[in-house]
Amino acid sequence: MNLKPLGDRVVIKVLEQEEKTQSGIVLPEKAKEKPQEGEVVAVGSGKVLDDGSKIDLEVKKGDKVVYSKFAGNEVEVNGEEYLIMRQDDILAVFE
Amino acid sequence: MNLKPLGDRVVIKVLEQEEKTQSGIVLPEKAKEKPQEGEVVAVGSGKVLDDGSKIDLEVKKGDKVVYSKFAGNEVEVNGEEYLIMRQDDILAVFE
Amino acid sequence: MNLKPLGDRVVIKVLEQEEKTQSGIVLPEKAKEKPQEGEVVAVGSGKVLDDGSKIDLEVKKGDKVVYSKFAGNEVEVNGEEYLIMRQDDILAVFE
Amino acid sequence: MNLKPLGDRVVIKVLEQEEKTQSGIVLPEKAKEKPQEGEVVAVGSGKVLDDGSKIDLEVKKGDKVVYSKFAGNEVEVNGEEYLIMRQDDILAVFE
Amino acid sequence: MNLKPLGDRVVIKVLEQEEKTQSGIVLPEKAKEKPQEGEVVAVGSGKVLDDGSKIDLEVKKGDKVVYSKFAGNEVEVNGEEYLIMRQDDILAVFE
Amino acid sequence: MNLKPLGDRVVIKVLEQEEKTQSGIVLPEKAKEKPQEGEVVAVGSGKVLDDGSKIDLEVKKGDKVVYSKFAGNEVEVNGEEYLIMRQDDILAVFE
Amino acid sequence: MNLKPLGDRVVIKVLEQEEKTQSGIVLPEKAKEKPQEGEVVAVGSGKVLDDGSKIDLEVKKGDKVVYSKFAGNEVEVNGEEYLIMRQDDILAVFE
Repeated sequence: MNLKPLGDRVVIKVLEQEEKTQSGIVLPEKAKEKPQEGEVVAVGSGKVLDDGSKIDLEVKKGDKVVYSKFAGNEVEVNGEEYLIMRQDDILAVFE
Repeated sequence: MNLKPLGDRVVIKVLEQEEKTQSGIVLPEKAKEKPQEGEVVAVGSGKVLDDGSKIDLEVKKGDKVVYSKFAGNEVEVNGEEYLIMRQDDILAVFE
Repeated sequence: MNLKPLGDRVVIKVLEQEEKTQSGIVLPEKAKEKPQEGEVVAVGSGKVLDDGSKIDLEVKKGDKVVYSKFAGNEVEVNGEEYLIMRQDDILAVFE
Repeated sequence: MNLKPLGDRVVIKVLEQEEKTQSGIVLPEKAKEKPQEGEVVAVGSGKVLDDGSKIDLEVKKGDKVVYSKFAGNEVEVNGEEYLIMRQDDILAVFE
Repeated sequence: MNLKPLGDRVVIKVLEQEEKTQSGIVLPEKAKEKPQEGEVVAVGSGKVLDDGSKIDLEVKKGDKVVYSKFAGNEVEVNGEEYLIMRQDDILAVFE
Repeated sequence: MNLKPLGDRVVIKVLEQEEKTQSGIVLPEKAKEKPQEGEVVAVGSGKVLDDGSKIDLEVKKGDKVVYSKFAGNEVEVNGEEYLIMRQDDILAVFE
Repeated sequence: MNLKPLGDRVVIKVLEQEEKTQSGIVLPEKAKEKPQEGEVVAVGSGKVLDDGSKIDLEVKKGDKVVYSKFAGNEVEVNGEEYLIMRQDDILAVFE
């Protein structure tokens, strides 16, 4: 996968339903807004602060994460589906 | 529960109705916006400030809290229902 | 009352109509937005500033206050009705 | 009048129509948004800045002011009608 | 004219159509938003910055200015029509 | 042309269609939002920063620029049509 | 191509469908918001910070990038179609 996200964005590989249940996380159908689960495959160079300096992102490559349902832009690279989103749309890391 | 929330987010275990009445807190049906009650099961690493530094969250694991009705994203982990929300959506801690 | 509000929030005990008239404050029916009156029963730890420091709230426990009609979230504790709101929704203190 | 406004708010006594014409200010009927006129009867402790410090308000008790039509919340105290609004809703002081 | 505008506001005397053509400025009918022309008759004490200090306004009493059509609040003083608006609604000064 | 724009605003003389084609820039009809082309005829004194200081604008008098279709306010001076807009609505300078 | 974008904007040459498949990136039809792909042909002078200083943009001329579908303004120069957008609308660089 050859996409390098910009700034505070990350690229996430969407985990299919059965992959999710192994991780124990199931997203309740009834929930108006169903957070989704995926794996971080690339992180941006960091979040630019008001003074122009950058801080590293909290998530790293390989992290399994839960994110908001409507987060990010879909991109397909060599047949694989990815989402590019800001770190702020990621809710939690699956330890 | 193996979810580690990011930044200023917390994971809350939703308290069912009977659990609430033991705590003395009942959420008035008629209230347009009914705050909910739950227990904090995980807190994020802190709120990132403009200069990139972080401050700890005010709530901690084990706190019983009241939060706004429409706050957070629902996630089910090993059959248990949790909410992931920002600390700012928590109204008060039940002492 | 065992609710400790977070940050810049306060818990207010809603004053019923007859309690209000003793204080001399009557909220005009015709007013599009009718400010309400109540007593502060708990105050948060303070307002967090951009640099992470905190400043105390201007109101204190026991103050009689006037606040905007649609402010706050309703909570009932041991049969008593309270509102949890931000200090910024409080208009004035009744001296 | 025993209302002490909070922060950058002021309490204004609404001037009735005939009181206004003496001051020479008439609010044009046709104006989509008709500024109103009143007298400042109480001012808040000041506007809180980002660093937590406070600056005094520009208006003072006794000033006759013109303010935006939809500004403020109505409160009646001992039969007198007052408006509680932020200083920023006041357009000008009548010298 | 005895109106002293607050902060970054100015009082403008609206120039009637024929007064405008002498200045060479005609506001095109077809323009969805027709900037208007007037003369500055009073300026506020200045724009308050984040740290509480003030900077003087760029326009001064006597300047002929062009401003956005929907800017400001109308006030009539001793039969004359004025507009009270923020300096930011003024587009340009007519040299 | 005797208009001096305020702050971070500029005055632009709209280039008619044939003038544009000489510059090689044609604005595609189908584009939902068609950027326009014009020449800068006056620039404001600069953009005011949070601390009250000013920085010069990037564009200067004589620059040919492309700007967003809905940007600015129309003004006609001595029969010529101008647009007054903020520099931020200018997309690029035609070298 | 003689367009010099302002500030934090970039000029992008839109890559046609077949050009995209060589790069391995295909934008899924079903995606509500389909990020697009293009090549950076010019970058602005940098992003202006609150204190007036500038930081260089992360992307550079020649980078292949993925950006949000509705980003930017269309401009045609000498028969070629370009988009002028802010760097913040660029999601990732194709390595």
